[in-house]
Amino acid sequence: MAIMVAEHGKWPAKSDPIFMIAGKAAEAKEKYGADKVINSTLGALMDDDGSLVAFDSVYTTLKNLNNAEIAAYAPIQGTKEFLEAAELNCFGQYRPDAHIRAVSTPGGTGGVKQAVWNYTNTGDSILTTNWYWSPYNTITEEIDRGVETFDIFNEDGNYNLKGLKEQSKKLLDKQKRLLLILNTPAHNPTGYSVSDEEWDEILDFMKKEAEDKENKITILVDAAYIEFAGEKDERKKFFKKFTNLPDNLFIIVAFSTSKSHTMYGLRSGAVIGISSNEEVVEEFYYACLHTARANWSNGTRGAMATVAKITNDKNLNKQYQEEKNKYKKLLRKRAEAFVEEAEKVNLEILPYRDGFFVSIPCDNPQEASEKLMKENIFVVPLQKGLRFAVCAVSEEKCKTAPEKIKKVLNK
Amino acid sequence: MAIMVAEHGKWPAKSDPIFMIAGKAAEAKEKYGADKVINSTLGALMDDDGSLVAFDSVYTTLKNLNNAEIAAYAPIQGTKEFLEAAELNCFGQYRPDAHIRAVSTPGGTGGVKQAVWNYTNTGDSILTTNWYWSPYNTITEEIDRGVETFDIFNEDGNYNLKGLKEQSKKLLDKQKRLLLILNTPAHNPTGYSVSDEEWDEILDFMKKEAEDKENKITILVDAAYIEFAGEKDERKKFFKKFTNLPDNLFIIVAFSTSKSHTMYGLRSGAVIGISSNEEVVEEFYYACLHTARANWSNGTRGAMATVAKITNDKNLNKQYQEEKNKYKKLLRKRAEAFVEEAEKVNLEILPYRDGFFVSIPCDNPQEASEKLMKENIFVVPLQKGLRFAVCAVSEEKCKTAPEKIKKVLNK
Repeated sequence: MAIMVAEHGKWPAKSDPIFMIAGKAAEAKEKYGADKVINSTLGALMDDDGSLVAFDSVYTTLKNLNNAEIAAYAPIQGTKEFLEAAELNCFGQYRPDAHIRAVSTPGGTGGVKQAVWNYTNTGDSILTTNWYWSPYNTITEEIDRGVETFDIFNEDGNYNLKGLKEQSKKLLDKQKRLLLILNTPAHNPTGYSVSDEEWDEILDFMKKEAEDKENKITILVDAAYIEFAGEKDERKKFFKKFTNLPDNLFIIVAFSTSKSHTMYGLRSGAVIGISSNEEVVEEFYYACLHTARANWSNGTRGAMATVAKITNDKNLNKQYQEEKNKYKKLLRKRAEAFVEEAEKVNLEILPYRDGFFVSIPCDNPQEASEKLMKENIFVVPLQKGLRFAVCAVSEEKCKTAPEKIKKVLNK
Repeated sequence: MAIMVAEHGKWPAKSDPIFMIAGKAAEAKEKYGADKVINSTLGALMDDDGSLVAFDSVYTTLKNLNNAEIAAYAPIQGTKEFLEAAELNCFGQYRPDAHIRAVSTPGGTGGVKQAVWNYTNTGDSILTTNWYWSPYNTITEEIDRGVETFDIFNEDGNYNLKGLKEQSKKLLDKQKRLLLILNTPAHNPTGYSVSDEEWDEILDFMKKEAEDKENKITILVDAAYIEFAGEKDERKKFFKKFTNLPDNLFIIVAFSTSKSHTMYGLRSGAVIGISSNEEVVEEFYYACLHTARANWSNGTRGAMATVAKITNDKNLNKQYQEEKNKYKKLLRKRAEAFVEEAEKVNLEILPYRDGFFVSIPCDNPQEASEKLMKENIFVVPLQKGLRFAVCAVSEEKCKTAPEKIKKVLNK
């Protein structure tokens, strides 16, 4: 029972489990030495020695800004230069032919909040995959929305389009409104990327559902990990498909610089609304503006200026791309090492394509995580398995981890 | 009628008026020259030449941080060092003897959001003064709360404690729950600071109301401008009064580094909960943690590290205090010039004590603001008058402005 807080503000006294496990990993590192510990908890890119990667191009640019450029308030919607840069970075060469408007957000979280708050009603449920980033739950439960899920993979291990469609239909029947959150490419936590063919099938289905003009369908593409997916821009091709959609099929992209620019702590991202109908993106813009003003006001000015400069300055951009590609390759090697080794030792993992994480389905993930901690392996327990952050672990350790995990799970 | 957005997300297509007028002021400066324009719009400290003040001590510290220290995610609640620094900066030598917990927020806005969301119910109204910072309205209307007000000054020009009490009683009778927002010291927009004697009377009244244990009373002290109020720490004495309050009289302070550290664009502040009952601050902490995770996740790490370092390093702190005091004096001189001159030319203003703004009551503020624009004087129209930002205008111009404003208002 709440004492002073309103009932809806009463939550269990628990801290974020990821930060808690990361704390234990740090203790173990202190006690046993870094080489003895596999810390695969935090979703941030780490060098092989366990130190956080912070791109030189990004931080040199930030530190070269005039003080006043960092100190000033940004406009509520974000600076013009940043919003243009956000769209350029997000779409690459695959910008859809549509009306597009963007508003800055504090990282990807702010983007998800914008979509959930403004595109669902109290009591509605959003739809996402059954393996999902747990803050989707925090964001929705805070404002009295629910989360419905569909199994991300079918029994053949393929993306479960049938489940996606069935659950979408069910929610549309009930709510006449659907917010489908697809965390792709490089899904957190499985590392799956929806293929271009799968996107075609999803959009064909949604277009058909949109023939009922009472249906209001919104797809939120949470693209937090997009810069670490695929070869070059290949994983951005699907954006082009958001051309000529019906008015009642609206796309929002949650763009974040946290991973793409190693700017996690600078809290900078944007929501980008895409529609064939100009009025739809106009109302999106003013909805997001109001929500921004009413929650966090404006964004981190220095982060915006940094991203804009890196996008627009040819030399800086070259340097940034080189750094990013270096780590993209490093990440791929680590993931390949983990996936290959998992296969060798018969450790079951979910289909991995890109990104920071690999997922290991298992029973009693909480218990498994605790057992692994005793072996100095720190992974995050999810509802249906364990999340191994290849972004944070050296290739060498990625090679040894699957066998160690397999052993503990077999116990 | 909304097309795709939910009805509660449909807002008029209007941009922030302050940023709009500031834009016009910038155009006028370009066209007529800086010396011909009085730009008194933005609530940020400007040098006499109209450039934004950014403390050297702050930005040297920020730029000297390791890149990884800026890049990393901060914990949801904020770093330990920052939260300790926030409390030290906020209370000065007047820390109340009470249970105290803090959670980081994106500036003062995030703090107001935390209090309004977690300490009122849907349909409730908060209470504040009739002259108030307009985002209180944006923050409450976004989540279906209302704003009730009492006249800040009575007919004698004194702080209207009678009105405060009457309206508090009315809301308590109706809601059994009260969130009173007092923007003090250095109230935006009037520049009024609630005196220590007035605080005594407010707390005595609230303690009496709290004898009805069904009443849940929360006072949010929005202290955004506190570092520019009074001589030394004298305007922090009232914090000590938050000692030994009844369990159902809870205090939240919205602490912000935007003004105190000239870090507007870095989005860093904290909510600080104060209670005699440990459980009350515990539930406050977990409520704020959940709301943070569900809205903006975590705060700007580099800003937190900067504030912590400046608070804890003796030399840096000395440098920071000197800079801040220099501008505090500058601000006082400007305000004194404006107030004296207003008296001379019989321009009615509201009682000013401290801070960034002076308020001029008038009819049709919108029209008055537009007329003033034609004279190259840019002020912000509020519901009941005009806000003149002495923080942004040189002493010289503060001397000439009242006569010019008087003339236009007389037309």
